[in-house]
Amino acid sequence: MLFMVEMEVVVPHDVDRDHFEALKAEEKVRAQTLQKAGTWRHLWRVAGQYANVSIFDVQSVDDLHEILLGLPLFPFMKTKVTALCRHPSSIYDDDR
Amino acid sequence: MLFMVEMEVVVPHDVDRDHFEALKAEEKVRAQTLQKAGTWRHLWRVAGQYANVSIFDVQSVDDLHEILLGLPLFPFMKTKVTALCRHPSSIYDDDR
Amino acid sequence: MLFMVEMEVVVPHDVDRDHFEALKAEEKVRAQTLQKAGTWRHLWRVAGQYANVSIFDVQSVDDLHEILLGLPLFPFMKTKVTALCRHPSSIYDDDR
Amino acid sequence: MLFMVEMEVVVPHDVDRDHFEALKAEEKVRAQTLQKAGTWRHLWRVAGQYANVSIFDVQSVDDLHEILLGLPLFPFMKTKVTALCRHPSSIYDDDR
Amino acid sequence: MLFMVEMEVVVPHDVDRDHFEALKAEEKVRAQTLQKAGTWRHLWRVAGQYANVSIFDVQSVDDLHEILLGLPLFPFMKTKVTALCRHPSSIYDDDR
Amino acid sequence: MLFMVEMEVVVPHDVDRDHFEALKAEEKVRAQTLQKAGTWRHLWRVAGQYANVSIFDVQSVDDLHEILLGLPLFPFMKTKVTALCRHPSSIYDDDR
Amino acid sequence: MLFMVEMEVVVPHDVDRDHFEALKAEEKVRAQTLQKAGTWRHLWRVAGQYANVSIFDVQSVDDLHEILLGLPLFPFMKTKVTALCRHPSSIYDDDR
Amino acid sequence: MLFMVEMEVVVPHDVDRDHFEALKAEEKVRAQTLQKAGTWRHLWRVAGQYANVSIFDVQSVDDLHEILLGLPLFPFMKTKVTALCRHPSSIYDDDR
Amino acid sequence: MLFMVEMEVVVPHDVDRDHFEALKAEEKVRAQTLQKAGTWRHLWRVAGQYANVSIFDVQSVDDLHEILLGLPLFPFMKTKVTALCRHPSSIYDDDR
Amino acid sequence: MLFMVEMEVVVPHDVDRDHFEALKAEEKVRAQTLQKAGTWRHLWRVAGQYANVSIFDVQSVDDLHEILLGLPLFPFMKTKVTALCRHPSSIYDDDR
Repeated sequence: MLFMVEMEVVVPHDVDRDHFEALKAEEKVRAQTLQKAGTWRHLWRVAGQYANVSIFDVQSVDDLHEILLGLPLFPFMKTKVTALCRHPSSIYDDDR
Repeated sequence: MLFMVEMEVVVPHDVDRDHFEALKAEEKVRAQTLQKAGTWRHLWRVAGQYANVSIFDVQSVDDLHEILLGLPLFPFMKTKVTALCRHPSSIYDDDR
Repeated sequence: MLFMVEMEVVVPHDVDRDHFEALKAEEKVRAQTLQKAGTWRHLWRVAGQYANVSIFDVQSVDDLHEILLGLPLFPFMKTKVTALCRHPSSIYDDDR
Repeated sequence: MLFMVEMEVVVPHDVDRDHFEALKAEEKVRAQTLQKAGTWRHLWRVAGQYANVSIFDVQSVDDLHEILLGLPLFPFMKTKVTALCRHPSSIYDDDR
Repeated sequence: MLFMVEMEVVVPHDVDRDHFEALKAEEKVRAQTLQKAGTWRHLWRVAGQYANVSIFDVQSVDDLHEILLGLPLFPFMKTKVTALCRHPSSIYDDDR
Repeated sequence: MLFMVEMEVVVPHDVDRDHFEALKAEEKVRAQTLQKAGTWRHLWRVAGQYANVSIFDVQSVDDLHEILLGLPLFPFMKTKVTALCRHPSSIYDDDR
Repeated sequence: MLFMVEMEVVVPHDVDRDHFEALKAEEKVRAQTLQKAGTWRHLWRVAGQYANVSIFDVQSVDDLHEILLGLPLFPFMKTKVTALCRHPSSIYDDDR
Repeated sequence: MLFMVEMEVVVPHDVDRDHFEALKAEEKVRAQTLQKAGTWRHLWRVAGQYANVSIFDVQSVDDLHEILLGLPLFPFMKTKVTALCRHPSSIYDDDR
Repeated sequence: MLFMVEMEVVVPHDVDRDHFEALKAEEKVRAQTLQKAGTWRHLWRVAGQYANVSIFDVQSVDDLHEILLGLPLFPFMKTKVTALCRHPSSIYDDDR
Repeated sequence: MLFMVEMEVVVPHDVDRDHFEALKAEEKVRAQTLQKAGTWRHLWRVAGQYANVSIFDVQSVDDLHEILLGLPLFPFMKTKVTALCRHPSSIYDDDR
């Protein structure tokens, strides 16, 4: 079950930099673990912004929620979730 | 070079239905040709809407423009184009 | 799997009234069939508007899409879909 | 009398964490008390966000206001209130 | 129980003028009947626009909905409904 | 001369609470004085929000401005001002 | 008493051109009559748009409303009204 | 004196196609004449949309207005005008 | 050459009050100097807001920019600039 | 390959001024280096705002992203990226 998630990271100018860098490092590990597991199916950077477009493949909406809320940078994110489904003109087996 | 394109189709209630259905059929053929060519890399339906999220892989912005303007349903579409690039945490070779 | 769907019906002033009334009657039948099947779990009117708030319980996003696109009044609707999940403070077995 | 209330919690990055966690615990108790009383009729988490969609069943608008303003996390919330009423196609006795 | 209703009338340029004028006359009669009944408690014109701000005093949200949907000009209106309640600083007995 | 003023109070989480409570008390006194003088003609709470809808009856726009800027909580408010006038269907002598 | 009024004229592509041109001519006469009377105090074109920014000096909000609704092109306009008052730093006697 | 003008062309589905194509041809001639005269300094297509971003170099705002209103496709355009000036970090003689 | 500039002043609640009051005093002096020079042609307060509507008459866009950026309160302002030109129905020599 | 980038700089009122001025100086050096290299093709100030409109000529979207994220003032910027392509009516060799 696929969802597009758009994440924008907003960094307050007076954040503790060391703490934030530590969270970023954790975020990268988490993102790669989820990619290897096949859950975070696509991950692109939005050009010119501290933001990404992602495709998640999850068993349920609850799984999706648990994953997103658990991201180390979640407290600094604005998120937008869009439910996707198979397009009648798609020829790709993966895009479902 | 990757671009996310979000397309929403708006059908005027007084459109000529036969003409519109003919355009839809052409659109499907075009979409599948572009998928087979590797240009239209992903194509998902937005749940509950006459809209899609697509990923295009093109040689240039001019190519992207020519493809989109040439879509049979383009005159009925609202489009939004977002330039994407490689995410530093991505492990996928394809997502670039 | 639960989704909130907000539907607003926009009626063009020059629509064929008989055709529209026929669609409304079909819509009512469809809505009640889906409620009896347990798929359309809640259905409320938004006060003062030709709009509703609905909760759907579906097996997949594709099912949700098929149901919404198949509604007789869909061509006259603006829709907004929100994926819902269990709230940690909920005590209701049904709200999942 | 039913109202949909959408609540989004915005947590300032420099909030006192202990104070905030204490408020969250109180909020959970309050939410469950109101559910048991039949006042907070539905409570869903919005997937991927620190936000919920709720249905309240109250005797008056003043009651609704008193309940919402009294929520421990209210000072951190953005709220949107929508008055609901019975939908002519609804078959549910409860959705009123 | 008080609700503020903001109504904006949008007149399509190709509407049948006689039909529209007839609806306007009916609307005026209806508005005055509801004012005399104490239901439509206040009615102001928004300066420079074909729009009004109104205060309704109703027994239930269903009553409010029935009144608004029954207005002769409803098919040409955009409406916004806001639930009101007593303000702790109000000294007026009527503003509740 | 009537104006609708919508006021939303935004309280920064790190405000000095004693100072703010003192301003709130002053605000209440001021609001009641203006009501008794017939200037602040209506005052309703917006349900579920720290916001109000008010009707002011003033001699001039300058008077309105002076009153609003002088409110103790003005520095924490977002305001929206709408000029109102008599509605041709109104039967109330007061709504002008 | 001064009000800024922003007017945007939206011309439907299928409007009767002769009728519209006749309204435009009437509008010009009306605008100049109101300028000579000192009521329409300023009138500027917004560069690159079929829109204007105007300053009206009126005795009451009802006068303003009557003037605007009476403009021959009003049915094709979107209007925005802003109440103005004397600025404490202004040195102009006229800007009040 | 430089202005950025963003133009979006909106084509009604029931427009007379021959008339519209004739206007498009005229528009192209006009655009090229203005480019050769040094007035329309830059002209880019927005990828994926029937829209452009343009830079105009004019003697006055009135000149700019006259040019834009005189474009054959102006009746089908939404325009946005932004006044530009020299950037303190610019090294280009032309960008002023 | 005329520009409408809309300025809204946003005062952070934790600003140094003495510093801010000093800037306000400087702003007033600057505004009056520019009015006497004929550059700041009109200046009105927006009723109920810490905002103004102004008309500037400048030799060039660069002059306008230099003036606005140099205002003592500029760091606390949101600004919107609109290029104005002579309206074909205007009878005023000054409104150009 | 051309992209329009709109950058707005938002300066928090409690930023360390020396640090910010140092970043501004670095930003200027960087901007001029990129202009000399032909990458930052145009750079204009938006009149009356701490904002610019820029045209970048890059080899790839990844290059564009690296350049923008590397700007010393990027942490204080809101950016908007628009992909541009050759306009069929353009006569300029450079505008591609």
